[in-house]
Amino acid sequence: MTALYGAIEAGGTKFVCMVGAGPEDVRAETRFPTTSPERTLRQAIEFLRAEQDRQGPLAAVGIASFGPVDLRPDSPTYGYITSTPKAGWSNVSMAGAAAAALGVPVGFDTDVNAAALAEQRWGAGRGLHSFVYMTIGTGIGGGGLLDGRVLHGLVHPEMGHMRLPHDVAADPFAGICPFHGDCLEGLASGPAMNARWRQPAEDLPDDHPAWPLEAGYLALAVSNLVCTLSPQRIVIGGGVMSKAFLFPMIRQKVADLLNNYVRAPEIVDDIDDFIVAPGLGERAGAFGGFALAADALQASPPERDAV
Amino acid sequence: MTALYGAIEAGGTKFVCMVGAGPEDVRAETRFPTTSPERTLRQAIEFLRAEQDRQGPLAAVGIASFGPVDLRPDSPTYGYITSTPKAGWSNVSMAGAAAAALGVPVGFDTDVNAAALAEQRWGAGRGLHSFVYMTIGTGIGGGGLLDGRVLHGLVHPEMGHMRLPHDVAADPFAGICPFHGDCLEGLASGPAMNARWRQPAEDLPDDHPAWPLEAGYLALAVSNLVCTLSPQRIVIGGGVMSKAFLFPMIRQKVADLLNNYVRAPEIVDDIDDFIVAPGLGERAGAFGGFALAADALQASPPERDAV
Repeated sequence: MTALYGAIEAGGTKFVCMVGAGPEDVRAETRFPTTSPERTLRQAIEFLRAEQDRQGPLAAVGIASFGPVDLRPDSPTYGYITSTPKAGWSNVSMAGAAAAALGVPVGFDTDVNAAALAEQRWGAGRGLHSFVYMTIGTGIGGGGLLDGRVLHGLVHPEMGHMRLPHDVAADPFAGICPFHGDCLEGLASGPAMNARWRQPAEDLPDDHPAWPLEAGYLALAVSNLVCTLSPQRIVIGGGVMSKAFLFPMIRQKVADLLNNYVRAPEIVDDIDDFIVAPGLGERAGAFGGFALAADALQASPPERDAV
Repeated sequence: MTALYGAIEAGGTKFVCMVGAGPEDVRAETRFPTTSPERTLRQAIEFLRAEQDRQGPLAAVGIASFGPVDLRPDSPTYGYITSTPKAGWSNVSMAGAAAAALGVPVGFDTDVNAAALAEQRWGAGRGLHSFVYMTIGTGIGGGGLLDGRVLHGLVHPEMGHMRLPHDVAADPFAGICPFHGDCLEGLASGPAMNARWRQPAEDLPDDHPAWPLEAGYLALAVSNLVCTLSPQRIVIGGGVMSKAFLFPMIRQKVADLLNNYVRAPEIVDDIDDFIVAPGLGERAGAFGGFALAADALQASPPERDAV
């Protein structure tokens, strides 16, 4: 019998919840705005419980969460959102709450690591062992796998907060990151574009100077990721990337920046296949919940047979 | 009986070769300048053979090499230096040459990955699963481990070539990297300092403005590594770092740059222990050869018993 999983993509703006056996077999799906932690988590759990009554027992649940989150298995706050600027959501138990309410193994990771895992399993990263997923939207984040292992380390990456060359003569915009001003997210997220150009990014015409500037910052980020993580492919998703003409611009600028120094054929000969759009679209995060759930089930100690 | 290993640190300027059971038991050591590949590799192999005659058979050899190198096990040029600006050294087989001459398993990696491995096993990274080693000298390089695996990915990281904010009003120096101009290595390597200040870096007085500038670039690099790799500790070695007063300057600037966004206690409360000097000094690379040799022996198929 196919195992059924619950998947929760816990975003700062909305939650997406699914029940199914995986991306090819989604049996139920809902989305609702992120309000207070109590109310939003209750909604998620009620959805999963109701579907469980309808579809049969869930084998595990996976939560792809906004962050920063605590991913250290031995930490007393494992599975918590730790210190987020989002009001009310600091120090909130996510994984523990779901495990207590549902009594099944719960997988937990950042939304971007989960999306990376989903893309690697079912989307644009299939067959790759080292792989980065970035999202350029309300914020900028990145996750990935190296040598088959999801990127954790001390905490988890915060790729949106790397510092990049910022030519203040050409772009005097100071950046909007409350922590860092002109880090990548401060310069190139959707809200940063809106603030710089005083209009929503999606309304800017295709020939607006905003776009080469945006592609330039994203290319600098990609080239730094090549220099630090050496991924086999970089997938870039998120609302801003719905302007598909950004991809060739970014690829050209990355090639210029690396200047044939990293001579891997994947980059030098085939950059169209090195920097790509997501294979799973905007459902990568929620699908990542299925991947986390399946991994949590596999990692959980086997149940003893009933005597 | 303790296994004896050969270790070769193949540097662009000099080779360091050792025979021993590990860092605590070095039985012989030599160093010689890097000339042509044929001559330099012959010297290394002759040293190992002579010591083998004296000390008994080597169980394996490890080579910590300058690069870029080919680390893909299934590549026809695995174990080669690929495309280096160093004259005569492009497309040179390192691992294969040693294996053919000595008939033992040969481990092969970048000098900085090998140094990271040695520091993690015997030095400043003991007990850590995610760890970065940087060297600031003639060039700038970085290696490391994530979740216990050495950083490889598509090729291997080239941390010295990341792009950083460069305030040309404060520092009009254009950078000396032949590929990238003002990348990290172009701005902050020893030769970059020499070129900017028209005197050897080691002669600059401790209160020279060169040092806060240098610490600033290194802090930007460290903060970007925190955002992309999330290591548990960053070890910084190399000739430039012999000015120990750089460490507190870098730590303070990293704390300012991250601005409490990454709230791990290791960074927020204990940055003195997060950014540290190597435990193995300038022998980390050659000791890394021992680590690579031991790993190659462990990975090699067991010999059949003689009948």
